[in-house]
Amino acid sequence: MDYTYAPGRNHLFVPGPVNIPEPVLRAMNRNNEDYRSPAVPALTKTLLEDVKKIFKTTTGTPFLFPTTGTGAWESALTNTLSPGDKTISFLIGQFSLLWVDQQKRLGFDVDVVESDWGEGAKLDVLAAKLAADPSHTIKAICIVHNETATGVTNNLAKVRKILDDYRHPALLLVDGVSSICALDFRMDEWGVDVALTGSQKALSLPTGLGIVCASPKALEAAKTAKSYRVFFDWSDYLKFYKMGTYWPYTPSIQLLYGLRAALDLLFEEGLDNVIARHARLGKATRLAVEAWGLKNCTQKEEWVSDTVTAVMVPPYIDSAEIVRRAWKRYNLSLGLGLNKVAGKVFRIGHLGNLNELQLLGCLAGVEMILKDVGYPVKLGSGVAAASAYLQNAIPLIPSRI
Amino acid sequence: MDYTYAPGRNHLFVPGPVNIPEPVLRAMNRNNEDYRSPAVPALTKTLLEDVKKIFKTTTGTPFLFPTTGTGAWESALTNTLSPGDKTISFLIGQFSLLWVDQQKRLGFDVDVVESDWGEGAKLDVLAAKLAADPSHTIKAICIVHNETATGVTNNLAKVRKILDDYRHPALLLVDGVSSICALDFRMDEWGVDVALTGSQKALSLPTGLGIVCASPKALEAAKTAKSYRVFFDWSDYLKFYKMGTYWPYTPSIQLLYGLRAALDLLFEEGLDNVIARHARLGKATRLAVEAWGLKNCTQKEEWVSDTVTAVMVPPYIDSAEIVRRAWKRYNLSLGLGLNKVAGKVFRIGHLGNLNELQLLGCLAGVEMILKDVGYPVKLGSGVAAASAYLQNAIPLIPSRI
Amino acid sequence: MDYTYAPGRNHLFVPGPVNIPEPVLRAMNRNNEDYRSPAVPALTKTLLEDVKKIFKTTTGTPFLFPTTGTGAWESALTNTLSPGDKTISFLIGQFSLLWVDQQKRLGFDVDVVESDWGEGAKLDVLAAKLAADPSHTIKAICIVHNETATGVTNNLAKVRKILDDYRHPALLLVDGVSSICALDFRMDEWGVDVALTGSQKALSLPTGLGIVCASPKALEAAKTAKSYRVFFDWSDYLKFYKMGTYWPYTPSIQLLYGLRAALDLLFEEGLDNVIARHARLGKATRLAVEAWGLKNCTQKEEWVSDTVTAVMVPPYIDSAEIVRRAWKRYNLSLGLGLNKVAGKVFRIGHLGNLNELQLLGCLAGVEMILKDVGYPVKLGSGVAAASAYLQNAIPLIPSRI
Amino acid sequence: MDYTYAPGRNHLFVPGPVNIPEPVLRAMNRNNEDYRSPAVPALTKTLLEDVKKIFKTTTGTPFLFPTTGTGAWESALTNTLSPGDKTISFLIGQFSLLWVDQQKRLGFDVDVVESDWGEGAKLDVLAAKLAADPSHTIKAICIVHNETATGVTNNLAKVRKILDDYRHPALLLVDGVSSICALDFRMDEWGVDVALTGSQKALSLPTGLGIVCASPKALEAAKTAKSYRVFFDWSDYLKFYKMGTYWPYTPSIQLLYGLRAALDLLFEEGLDNVIARHARLGKATRLAVEAWGLKNCTQKEEWVSDTVTAVMVPPYIDSAEIVRRAWKRYNLSLGLGLNKVAGKVFRIGHLGNLNELQLLGCLAGVEMILKDVGYPVKLGSGVAAASAYLQNAIPLIPSRI
Repeated sequence: MDYTYAPGRNHLFVPGPVNIPEPVLRAMNRNNEDYRSPAVPALTKTLLEDVKKIFKTTTGTPFLFPTTGTGAWESALTNTLSPGDKTISFLIGQFSLLWVDQQKRLGFDVDVVESDWGEGAKLDVLAAKLAADPSHTIKAICIVHNETATGVTNNLAKVRKILDDYRHPALLLVDGVSSICALDFRMDEWGVDVALTGSQKALSLPTGLGIVCASPKALEAAKTAKSYRVFFDWSDYLKFYKMGTYWPYTPSIQLLYGLRAALDLLFEEGLDNVIARHARLGKATRLAVEAWGLKNCTQKEEWVSDTVTAVMVPPYIDSAEIVRRAWKRYNLSLGLGLNKVAGKVFRIGHLGNLNELQLLGCLAGVEMILKDVGYPVKLGSGVAAASAYLQNAIPLIPSRI
Repeated sequence: MDYTYAPGRNHLFVPGPVNIPEPVLRAMNRNNEDYRSPAVPALTKTLLEDVKKIFKTTTGTPFLFPTTGTGAWESALTNTLSPGDKTISFLIGQFSLLWVDQQKRLGFDVDVVESDWGEGAKLDVLAAKLAADPSHTIKAICIVHNETATGVTNNLAKVRKILDDYRHPALLLVDGVSSICALDFRMDEWGVDVALTGSQKALSLPTGLGIVCASPKALEAAKTAKSYRVFFDWSDYLKFYKMGTYWPYTPSIQLLYGLRAALDLLFEEGLDNVIARHARLGKATRLAVEAWGLKNCTQKEEWVSDTVTAVMVPPYIDSAEIVRRAWKRYNLSLGLGLNKVAGKVFRIGHLGNLNELQLLGCLAGVEMILKDVGYPVKLGSGVAAASAYLQNAIPLIPSRI
Repeated sequence: MDYTYAPGRNHLFVPGPVNIPEPVLRAMNRNNEDYRSPAVPALTKTLLEDVKKIFKTTTGTPFLFPTTGTGAWESALTNTLSPGDKTISFLIGQFSLLWVDQQKRLGFDVDVVESDWGEGAKLDVLAAKLAADPSHTIKAICIVHNETATGVTNNLAKVRKILDDYRHPALLLVDGVSSICALDFRMDEWGVDVALTGSQKALSLPTGLGIVCASPKALEAAKTAKSYRVFFDWSDYLKFYKMGTYWPYTPSIQLLYGLRAALDLLFEEGLDNVIARHARLGKATRLAVEAWGLKNCTQKEEWVSDTVTAVMVPPYIDSAEIVRRAWKRYNLSLGLGLNKVAGKVFRIGHLGNLNELQLLGCLAGVEMILKDVGYPVKLGSGVAAASAYLQNAIPLIPSRI
Repeated sequence: MDYTYAPGRNHLFVPGPVNIPEPVLRAMNRNNEDYRSPAVPALTKTLLEDVKKIFKTTTGTPFLFPTTGTGAWESALTNTLSPGDKTISFLIGQFSLLWVDQQKRLGFDVDVVESDWGEGAKLDVLAAKLAADPSHTIKAICIVHNETATGVTNNLAKVRKILDDYRHPALLLVDGVSSICALDFRMDEWGVDVALTGSQKALSLPTGLGIVCASPKALEAAKTAKSYRVFFDWSDYLKFYKMGTYWPYTPSIQLLYGLRAALDLLFEEGLDNVIARHARLGKATRLAVEAWGLKNCTQKEEWVSDTVTAVMVPPYIDSAEIVRRAWKRYNLSLGLGLNKVAGKVFRIGHLGNLNELQLLGCLAGVEMILKDVGYPVKLGSGVAAASAYLQNAIPLIPSRI
C-alpha cells in the first residue's frame, strides 16, 4: 500500500488502535492451527486464568469474544438484561453516546443522564434516581470508565458507594475499553458486574478480541435475561468451558497467542508499574498542554484521564486541520474531535505499549503543527514542561538495572 | 508454547481454519494504524469492490464484520427477519444444526427439514412446502451450501429454480462458509439474497472476518426487519459507506491488509482455477478413500464435496482415535466426526491455499494411521489412486511456464 | 515477486537452503538492536556455549562468522595454514571439488585424492600417504563429512584412526556443512581440529552464519599460520571474547535470535532424536528409490547419506528436466545434478526441520514427475515402500504423548 | 529474551545497525527458497541493476557479498591490490583505523596519513605525496567517506580533483559504509574505483550484505591483483553473472527480498529526497547540540556529518555513563565514544529509515540524560532549536498530499 508510505516510524497517538510491541507481533506471526487439538484448549486455559488479573477479579468469569468493543458492549447488555428493562446510562461523550444508542436499539428503557462534554458522569443524579427507586425498577447502571472522546475518567469507586448507600441491586456494567490495563481498575473491589475491554486498546494487540468479564451476580442474571443472543451468548461459552474445549466457534489462533504474549509483557512489567507509567504519560501530556497555553477538554482535575488527552484549540483554529497536518507532514497520527467537539479538540492517545521518549517526540511534533496552523506556541515549551517532570519521575528499567 | 512442538510442518487438514500462505502472513505482520486516516478507507474501498467477485455478484453489497461465521449467520438473519418470522431451514449435519439452533434462539419460527447425515437437503420437500404456501408466510429459506460435518454440497441452482417455479418471494439465505472461494458459487445467477463466509476457510486467512453479502432485496428487507441488532446491523455500515469512512467501529488493520493479499492471490491464480484446483483435490481424495476400501459419508455422487471429505470407518474402529494418532504421531491435523457421526467418521479438509503434493502427504499419513489402528489398508494404495488421476490432471503453474 | 507464485506450500527438497520452522521465523522477525548494549553479548554468550553441543565438543572454540559455508572453509584454512603448506584433500563430488579449488587458490600445496563421483574418500590412499610422510610435511587433511552433490557420507572415525595409527600430527579439517545437526558428528571423539557448517543447512536458518569450531590444537596452529586474513581471523574474535563484547564487527541481530530459537528446537527434540529422524528420512527415501527401480548415486551402503539422496536416472532421461518439471508443475524444489553428474542425477534433500509426511508428499510428487518424463514407474510404489518402513519406525511425538 | 524488555519502542540512535522499516521486515519474513530456481536469478538481476543507482554509477559492477562492512573492505582491497602494493590511507577515527589495520595485515605497504580525531583527511598531504610520486608507486588511495566514530565527512570530489591534477592513476577506494544512501555520493562523477557499504547502515536492513561496486578500472586491476582471495573474489561472481545464475554460493534469500523492499522504499521516497532528509536530521541535531552548549567532535563545518554526530562532553562527565543511562532508563540506544574519544564523546546516529519526530524524541531524551549526569542543560532547549529549524524545513509527505 504505497498510499501511506513515509520514511521512519508512524507516530501512532490515536487512543486506539495503539502500537503493538514486537514480541506480540512475533507471537502472532504464525499459521492457523486446529483449535480442536489439545494445544489450543491448553493455551486458552492459561489465558482465561490470567486475563482475570487485568480486571483485578478472582470471582469473575471472562469471555474472549472474536469481536470489537461494540460487540463486547452488546454481550454485556444482552446477557444480563431483557427488552424493556430500565437502565441508567451516563452520556458524557461520543463513546458513551454510542453505547446509549445501542442500549436503546436493543430495546431497553434507557434513562440517560447527560453531562456537558468534558465533564464526568453526574453521580449526584445517580444518587437521586436510586433514592427514588425503592422498588428497584432500575436493572442496571451503564457507565464508561474512561470516555475516549473527551479524556474524562469517571470515579467507579464512588458509583459503587452510591449503589451500596442505597442498597440498590442494579447491575453495574462498565465500559473499560480505554481504561483496563492502563488505569487502576478493580472489578471485585468496586463490585463491577460486567467489565469489558477491547484488544486494540491498552492491551496493545490488533482489534479482534472483545474481552468481557462477568461477576457471579451477572452470570446469575444471564439465566433469566430474555434478550435474544447467540453469538454473544455466555451460556454457549460456559458449556464449552465445562467440556474443557472452551470454544463454541472458531477463535483466532493468532490473537490467542498474541494475547498470551501481551499478558506476559504486562506481567513482566508489573500491572501496577504499567498503571504508574500511564500516570506519568498522562501527567506529562497535561503539563505540555498547559505550557502551550491551551486548555484540556476535561473540565476538572478529578476527571483527567491518563490514557487520552483532548486538547482544546482556540476558536480560530480547526482542530481537524491539526490532525490532517500531523499525518501529512509529520507522520503523526492524532485523534480527531468527534461529534460535539469536532473541530474544537484534537486528541493525544497515550496508552498501551508506549514510553516517554515516544511521547516527547509526539509533543515536539504537536508544537510544530500548532505553529503551522498559526497558534503562537513557543517551540520546546511543552517538551520542556513534560521532561522537567519526567526527568524526576521515570524509574530505571527493572530488567536492565 | 512447547506443548505442540514437533519437527517439520504441521499438516493442517481440518476443514478450517486452514493454511495461511506466506504472502498473507507477511501482509499481516504489521503495527496498528489509525483507521480514520485516509489510508484505511482507501484500502477498504478496494476490498469491498473486490470481495464481491468471490461471491460472483455485481449487485450485492458486502459487509466485513469483525466476527466469525457464527456472527455472520446472525447478521444475515437479524437484518432480514423479525422475531416470529417463518423460515424453512435444512438440517443435514452439525453446522446446519447449529444454524437452525441459532434461528430458533433468535425467535424465528423455524420449519426444519431434516435429512440423514450424509445426505443433501430434501429439495422435494421444499417444493412441497412452497406449493402449500400461496400466501407467502415463509419469509426465508436457510441452507448451507456445503455441510462441513459430512462433506455434502447442496445444489443451490436447483433451490433457486424451485423458488422461481413457485414464484415464491422468500429470501434465500446461504451459508457459504466452507464453499465460497473453493466451490462454484454464483450469488447473482442463483438469486441468493444473503451469502456469507468466514475468513479462516477458503480465503486462507486467520479467523476474524465474517463476510456477508446482501442482495438489493435483502437490503430492502433490512429496512423493515425488527430483530434487535446493533453490532451486526447493516445500516450502520451503510451510513459509513456513504460518508466514505466505511467503519462504524474499529476494524482489524491486519485482517484488512491480509484480505487484500488473499484476494490478490486468488485473482492471480484466477477464481475459476482455484475452483478447478479444489475439484482436483476433492476427486483425488475420494479416489484414495475408494482405494482404501472405505466409504464416503456422502451418500450420493451429486452431493460430494470438493472442500471436505468425511471418511467412514468400520464399526470396530473409533475415528477419534485416528484423529488423535494423526496429531500425536504424524503431526497431521484431521477433522473429528461431530455429533451423530462422532467416532464414525474422520474428516479430511482439502480447501484453501493447498496443493496436490500437500494432499498426497496427508493421504500417505492417513494410510499409516489406518494401519496403526488395525484397518487392513494396502499402504500406497490411496496415494497411487490419487496420483494416477492427478498426474493427468494437474496443469503447469501459469507463472512458471 | 509474482514470478514464483503457486498455490500451497513450496515443497523444498533441495539439500539447502532448507525449510525454516515457524518459531525461528518468528524469532527473527525483529528490528535491529545496538549490538554494543549488554543484551547482545548476554545472548551471544549462550549461543557460543550451546553451539558447541551440535559439534559434540567441550574443548572446541566456536566462531559465528557472518558468512556462508564457503567463507567458513576459508576461515578454517587461513587460520591454520600458511601458503605453501601441504594438504591432503579428498575430491569426491562438486563441493569437495570447490573446496579443493579454494585450497589451491589460497596458495596451499594440495595433494588431491580423487574418487569416482558416488564413492567415498579413498582412505587407504590416506594411509599410504601418511605412511610415506615420516617427516610430517603434510599439515592438514581436508575432508567433507557429507558430499552434498552425490549423497556420500565419509567415515570420519576411520580417518581419525588412520591418523592415530600413524601418529601423524596433521590437522583434521572437516566440512560438516550438510552433516552437522543431522548426521552423527563427534568433534572431540574423532579428534576433528576444525569443523564447520552453515546456518541454512540442518540448522534450518537462513543463509548467513558460517559456524566454525576450532580444537585447542587448531587454535595453537593459528598462532603461527601465515595466511593473510582479517575478516576471517580467529584472533580478532578471541580478543573480543576476552573483553566479553564478543563481536569484532556487526553481527546480524536477527540471525543471533534465530540461532537461539533453532538451538532451542534442536535441544527440545533432542540432538540424538534429530539424528534418528534424519536416519528415518534417509532410509525411507532410499527404499522409495529402490522401489522405483532406480539407482542411488552412492555406490556402497557404507557411504549412504541420511541428508541427501542423489538419484540416478536412465540414460534416456535428462535429470534437469525432472527438476524443472518439479518446480513448474508440482511446486516441488529438487536438487540438480552438478558438474560430472549433471543431467544424470537429481537430488532429494531430506535434512533440517522436516517430517515424514512432508517427505512422502515429495516422494509422491517424484513418482508423478518420473511418469511425466517417460520413466515407467508404478505410481505409489515408492510411497508404499517408504511408508511400510516408516509406519513401524516413527515414534510418538514426545510433547504430545 | 527477557533481558532487554522495556515498554514501548527502543529508540535506536546508534550509527548502525539502524531501524528496519516494517515493509522490509515483512519482505524478509519468509521461508528459504531454492536459489537455483529461475525465481532467484530473476530477482537478483533487478537488484544488481537497481543497486547501482545508490552508488550513482552506470559503469560500475556491483557485488552483493554475504558479509559485513569489514568483509566488503577486504573484498575491495584483495581484488585490486597485491601484497606489497603501496597505498595511502587516511586515519581519522576508529573505523579508518580498523581499515588501515586491515590493509597492513593483508600485506600492503600502507602510508598512513593521520589526522586528529574530529578532523577530516589531510588532503594537502595527499597532494604532496602524489606530487612526490611521478613513477606511480602509489597503487591506491583508501579513504572513508564518513568516519562513523567522529562524525566527519570527507570531501571526495576534492580527492578526485587532486588525483586528476596530478594525473595520478592510483585507484580510489572508498568506504561509504555510513554515507551511501544517506549522503550525496557520486561514484562515476568522482571517479571512485571501489565503493562499498553495508546493509545495516543507511539501507536500513539487517547486517549481512556487504555491497561492493567496482569501476571498470578496478575490474581491470582485479585481473592482475595477486592477493589471495576466494570468498571475496569478484571473478567467481562475474563467471556466474555471465551464466545468468548470479551466485557462486548460497545467498540469503531473506536479505535479497529485503534489499528489494529497501530499494523500493528508497526510490519511492526519491534518493535525493532521502539525502535531503538526512541533511535535515543532521542540521537539527547540530542545532540542538549547540543549544545545549556542547561541542561537536567535528572540528570544522566543512566536515560535519549528516549521518552521525559525535557530541563532546565536559571533562567532568563520562560519556559512557550517558550511553548506559540512555539504555537503562530511557530505552534509548546511543553510540559510545570509541578508542581515543572513549569517555569523551557520545554519538547520535541519525541515518537510515528515520524521521524528524523520532529524532526529536531522542533529543528530548538526551536532554534528560545530560541533566541526570549533572550537566546544566536547559530542558527543551535542544528540541526547541531543532524544531525551530525543522518546522520550516520539513516538506509535506508526497504520498499524502
